[in-house]
Amino acid sequence: MPRWDPCAEDRLRDAALELFLERGYENVTVAEITERAGLTRRSFSRYFADKRDVLFAGSDQLPAALAGAVRRADTALAPFEALLAALVDIAAGMADQAPLAAQRRAVVQASPELQERGRTKFAAATEAVADALRDRGTAEPQATLLAEVGVAVFRSAFERWTDRPDVAPLPARIREAAAELATSLGAVDLSAPPHP
Amino acid sequence: MPRWDPCAEDRLRDAALELFLERGYENVTVAEITERAGLTRRSFSRYFADKRDVLFAGSDQLPAALAGAVRRADTALAPFEALLAALVDIAAGMADQAPLAAQRRAVVQASPELQERGRTKFAAATEAVADALRDRGTAEPQATLLAEVGVAVFRSAFERWTDRPDVAPLPARIREAAAELATSLGAVDLSAPPHP
Repeated sequence: MPRWDPCAEDRLRDAALELFLERGYENVTVAEITERAGLTRRSFSRYFADKRDVLFAGSDQLPAALAGAVRRADTALAPFEALLAALVDIAAGMADQAPLAAQRRAVVQASPELQERGRTKFAAATEAVADALRDRGTAEPQATLLAEVGVAVFRSAFERWTDRPDVAPLPARIREAAAELATSLGAVDLSAPPHP
Repeated sequence: MPRWDPCAEDRLRDAALELFLERGYENVTVAEITERAGLTRRSFSRYFADKRDVLFAGSDQLPAALAGAVRRADTALAPFEALLAALVDIAAGMADQAPLAAQRRAVVQASPELQERGRTKFAAATEAVADALRDRGTAEPQATLLAEVGVAVFRSAFERWTDRPDVAPLPARIREAAAELATSLGAVDLSAPPHP
C-alpha cells in the first residue's frame, strides 16, 4: 500500500489498469481488481458498472459532447472551422485525462474486443458530429466526410498527447494535426476537372 | 424467373440481396437463398463460403490492394499525392461493382453486425495504408492520420458513386471528395503557433 491514501475511485482505476496490462483485459475479474486495490466489491459498484466501465467511463459522453460543441460554435464560421473550434473546446476540458490515457490505450490496443468498442465509439462520434454539421447547414456528403476527418484529427491529436503529454496541451496538438493535414492536402494538385 | 438466364453466381447474389433487403440479413438462411435462385446448396458452395461472403467477397482484398497501390506509386510523389494516386488506381478497377453496391450498402446499414464488420474492414484498410506510407518514408503520427483521411475520402467517394453511378465514375468521385476536403481545410486559418 502506498503511504499516501488516494480516494477509492482512483485506487480501483489504478489497480484495474495495472492488472489489465499485466494479464490482459479478458483475463481479469472485478474480484481481482478490488483485491489489488484493498477494497470491497461494494465500493467498486459505487463507482463503476463493470470492468469495461473502468476504461470507458467518460468517453461514452464524447459523441454528445462533440456534437454539442459543434452546434454551439459561432454561426459565422465555415464548417471545418466550426468543427475545429469544437474539437479544441472539448479538448480543453480533458487536461486531467493525460496521466491514465496512455495506459488505457495500451490496454485497448491489446484486446480485439476493446478495439472494436473503440471503433464503435468513434463511429458514433462521427455520426453525432455529422448530424450537428447538417444542423448548421452543411449538406451531405460533405457533412459526413468532414466529420470523419475531424474525428481522425481528434484521435491523432489525442494519441500524440498521451504519448508525450509534456510536449504540448491537447488543444495545441489538435491544431498541429489539422495544420499538417491542410499542408499535405494543399500540396496536391486537385485542379483536374472533377467529372472528366 | 427472368427470360434471360444469368450465370448461377449472379442469380445467387441477386437472390441473396433481395432476401436480405426484404427480411433483414440476420433472418435469411442459405437454403432460402438457393431456393429463391432455383439452385442447389452445392452450387452456392461453389461460389460462396457462407451468406456473409455474398456481401463481402471482393472487399476483403481491399486493404492489401490499397497498400500495394500505395507502394507502387511514383516515389517522387508527396505522401498524400501517392495515396490519392493509389485510391484512383484501385477505383479504376471497380467499375463493375456499381450495380450491386447500393443494394449491398442498404443491407449493411440495416444490420449492426454487418456495420461492425464494415468498420473492422475499413480499420484494416487504414492500417495497411499507414504501413505502406511508412515504407515510403512517411513517419508516424503523420502516416496514420493521412491513411485515415485517405480511407475516409475513398468511403465518401464510394457512397457518392453508388448513390448516383450515372453522375461520374468512381475515380472522378475520389478526386472530387479530396478537392472538397482541401478547400474546406484551406479555408481555415491554421497559422497559430502549434505549441502556444
